[in-house]
Amino acid sequence: MKRTISVLVNNSSGVLTRLSGLFARRSFNIESLTVGTTEDPSLSRMTIVVNGDERVSEQIMKQLHKQIDVLKVTDLSEDKMIVREMILVKVSVNHQTRPEINHLVVPFRASIVDVGKDSVTIQATGDDEKIEALIELLKPYGIKELARTGVTALARSKAQ
Amino acid sequence: MKRTISVLVNNSSGVLTRLSGLFARRSFNIESLTVGTTEDPSLSRMTIVVNGDERVSEQIMKQLHKQIDVLKVTDLSEDKMIVREMILVKVSVNHQTRPEINHLVVPFRASIVDVGKDSVTIQATGDDEKIEALIELLKPYGIKELARTGVTALARSKAQ
Repeated sequence: MKRTISVLVNNSSGVLTRLSGLFARRSFNIESLTVGTTEDPSLSRMTIVVNGDERVSEQIMKQLHKQIDVLKVTDLSEDKMIVREMILVKVSVNHQTRPEINHLVVPFRASIVDVGKDSVTIQATGDDEKIEALIELLKPYGIKELARTGVTALARSKAQ
Repeated sequence: MKRTISVLVNNSSGVLTRLSGLFARRSFNIESLTVGTTEDPSLSRMTIVVNGDERVSEQIMKQLHKQIDVLKVTDLSEDKMIVREMILVKVSVNHQTRPEINHLVVPFRASIVDVGKDSVTIQATGDDEKIEALIELLKPYGIKELARTGVTALARSKAQ
């Protein structure tokens, strides 16, 4: 089971090292980690996806709370949340498969962001399931390169 | 000046800690770092954006090359490249500003992914410049939360 944890931290040098060191020492199985500054440049938001049950995420949150520079820890798995990841995929094409791929990406609302002689690069955003489905569909054509950002997330608004 | 470095690494536990430790010890000014698995689950691609000149990125690349688990290091600043980041922004709205914001996001090809009673959440992808421009436009409405994935990048295809 996947748990998504959002951590608000002071944007100080070394904070990423300290926190990722914490995960490594405790052998938490981190599936994805992203860090970016927030609307306040002195703060960063770190989004961590970890494989494990509620007990594991509780342990992680307890450890995070103890850290200097950690201001707020939220388990987004508890809430309804918006989870998104972005990928860039460079796929082999020939004159036959090029139009096929152009059509294939449409239902994913993905877009072709670069066109080469024998490859195209596709950009797509979505949750884990959508991203994995797209990758599976593209695999038979030959994936030359793939870069993914990892997951970022925000809690959904409560009542309408 | 910003340099973007792409690193292909073995997807072993602790590799993120070792590499981020390397940056912290050497006081490299990391602006963004993303990690995600590639089309081969045993490999991850790390994309690092660093503030500095060519000398700094050369130092970093030299250090990275020495590391166990680092398979390939590419300075994408040298190439033409596709750089993309994704953000989620939760913005305050009222009956007056809601339609304004709906219109404002259109030229950014951003989309509204969650609607609450007094907030909307916007998803946008783009390069640094586009993302910053959108954030600046949204600031006056009141940004409640902001999560960004950090930058991922692939080299553009060479000749057409």
